Amino acid sequence: MRDINRREWLAGSAAALAGGPALAAAPKASAQGPGVYRTRLGDYQVTALYDGLWSLKIEDDFVRNADGAAVNKALAAAFLPPSVLPISFTVLLVNTGSKLVLIDAGTAGQVADTAGVMMANLAAAGVAPTAIDTVVISHFHPDHIDGLKTKDGDKVFINAEILVPEPEWTYWMDDAEMTKAPDRIKVYFRNARRIFGDIAKEVRRFKPGAEVAPGITSIPAFGHTPGHCAFAIASRNQSMLVMSDAVRNPYLFARHPEWQPAFDMDGPLAVKTRKQMLDRAAADRMLVEAYHFPFPACGHIARSGKSYEVVPVEWQPL
Amino acid sequence: MRDINRREWLAGSAAALAGGPALAAAPKASAQGPGVYRTRLGDYQVTALYDGLWSLKIEDDFVRNADGAAVNKALAAAFLPPSVLPISFTVLLVNTGSKLVLIDAGTAGQVADTAGVMMANLAAAGVAPTAIDTVVISHFHPDHIDGLKTKDGDKVFINAEILVPEPEWTYWMDDAEMTKAPDRIKVYFRNARRIFGDIAKEVRRFKPGAEVAPGITSIPAFGHTPGHCAFAIASRNQSMLVMSDAVRNPYLFARHPEWQPAFDMDGPLAVKTRKQMLDRAAADRMLVEAYHFPFPACGHIARSGKSYEVVPVEWQPL
Repeated sequence: MRDINRREWLAGSAAALAGGPALAAAPKASAQGPGVYRTRLGDYQVTALYDGLWSLKIEDDFVRNADGAAVNKALAAAFLPPSVLPISFTVLLVNTGSKLVLIDAGTAGQVADTAGVMMANLAAAGVAPTAIDTVVISHFHPDHIDGLKTKDGDKVFINAEILVPEPEWTYWMDDAEMTKAPDRIKVYFRNARRIFGDIAKEVRRFKPGAEVAPGITSIPAFGHTPGHCAFAIASRNQSMLVMSDAVRNPYLFARHPEWQPAFDMDGPLAVKTRKQMLDRAAADRMLVEAYHFPFPACGHIARSGKSYEVVPVEWQPL
Repeated sequence: MRDINRREWLAGSAAALAGGPALAAAPKASAQGPGVYRTRLGDYQVTALYDGLWSLKIEDDFVRNADGAAVNKALAAAFLPPSVLPISFTVLLVNTGSKLVLIDAGTAGQVADTAGVMMANLAAAGVAPTAIDTVVISHFHPDHIDGLKTKDGDKVFINAEILVPEPEWTYWMDDAEMTKAPDRIKVYFRNARRIFGDIAKEVRRFKPGAEVAPGITSIPAFGHTPGHCAFAIASRNQSMLVMSDAVRNPYLFARHPEWQPAFDMDGPLAVKTRKQMLDRAAADRMLVEAYHFPFPACGHIARSGKSYEVVPVEWQPL
């Protein structure tokens, strides 16, 4: 513990405000605190990097097999307003001691105005984008891949190898599939081309099930998209199940794993995958993480009848 | 079954030459990320400042009216190890626009080695200790008052008015009470003298129920200690119930509000206070905060039979 002196405080205030001189006796901060949560996993260090939250207005048919009233009841049980789905984004940084691996790439401010702070949080964590060795992608939805490129199309992680699930590449880069897709899905095909088109030769495709980095193994978790993958990170006797988008907002889709949201391309298959994963995580009392869980997006799964609850990890010193 | 790239080959070679595993190319962080969580409350800004976590070894008689097995079962349900109580510490900073008010003062590293980062987080929030106008104390346990002084006895918030509950002062500063207290409680009497002895004339005592700062009203919540107070913060149409130590670890004492831990000086009165507060918070769907809830220590209370659950707030942009 140390006191900061007046000069440091002025510098800190200026940085925090960045909007002009403070007039009030007590200026308010303009942004949330840094979203950087670290945990030890065997010899590895895993850092959850917050990217922001998209408050998505949803229609009554957002969940295909549940009506709007049931969805709103589930939101209210979580003290959330009706017809708005909070979609949080958290990228994982895995430090194996010799490699820095990112799992998914964040939104880079290209999905919602209220998301895109992952790079700022990576900097807050003391890591330069040039230091990233590997970026592993779970699937090709824009909120997972947009962070690979700036809005101007420049590569962000210039020294990193990019790894993607082979069936995901096969599907989204297939022009015939794009042609027959509905317009709302065509957007994702075009976006995949924007991100990967000019770096196709640099992207390495892995078979779901393969080890993608030392101690990081991909797990086929199809349904959300055709090649969607989860991951297991293991070091010594500790492990973490990275569920990617197999489970998203826990108050809707852990509590109601049978619900099929519009985001799941193959609803029944996604439900099967989700239930298998939740069941395994609960039975084995595994430490889990999911991209859209509330930050820091890590916790455990408790079974309760046919429903599941997420018990968040407690924020604690390293 | 994968190609080894040049970097891996070099690392492998180096490892072979050194006769051991590759030296870390990616140094690991030595500390947790900053614990600064901000939320808007009407015209006010409330910042939760993390101070750390004490993993307290507990004996089978820690809860007076529940056996060790029941307590361990409750810990296991929260994916926590047996016989260890995680005691998190979070101080609230309230910015009313004209005043900076701290509610409680943190441990200042004087309670556990793994706590005492509140001042660093205050600095990370861009606020100097000299800028604090008011420190309001909930009760005189060391983890709430030690942060008022350095280990050397210097005042930390040199421009702040210190406000304390009158019955708390009356009890802990009474030599006759100290004389008749058991040794484990005498420690708290002595500590209260260490903190307040030489600044007694500067400390303002308030009657529980009184407004202690603009929009911040104290609430009598006796039982944990004789003068223990909660607080309500209100601005425009928004409010927050600051429960102080009326409820501590939620997996034990929200789920089992009738449990009487050793920390509660008057067990039955503390249970009555706890139940009333949880019941009101659940019925009114209030935003709540509690000093020992997992960081960021803010959430809502959901009733479930005679039990309660804490639904944490979701980390989100300001």
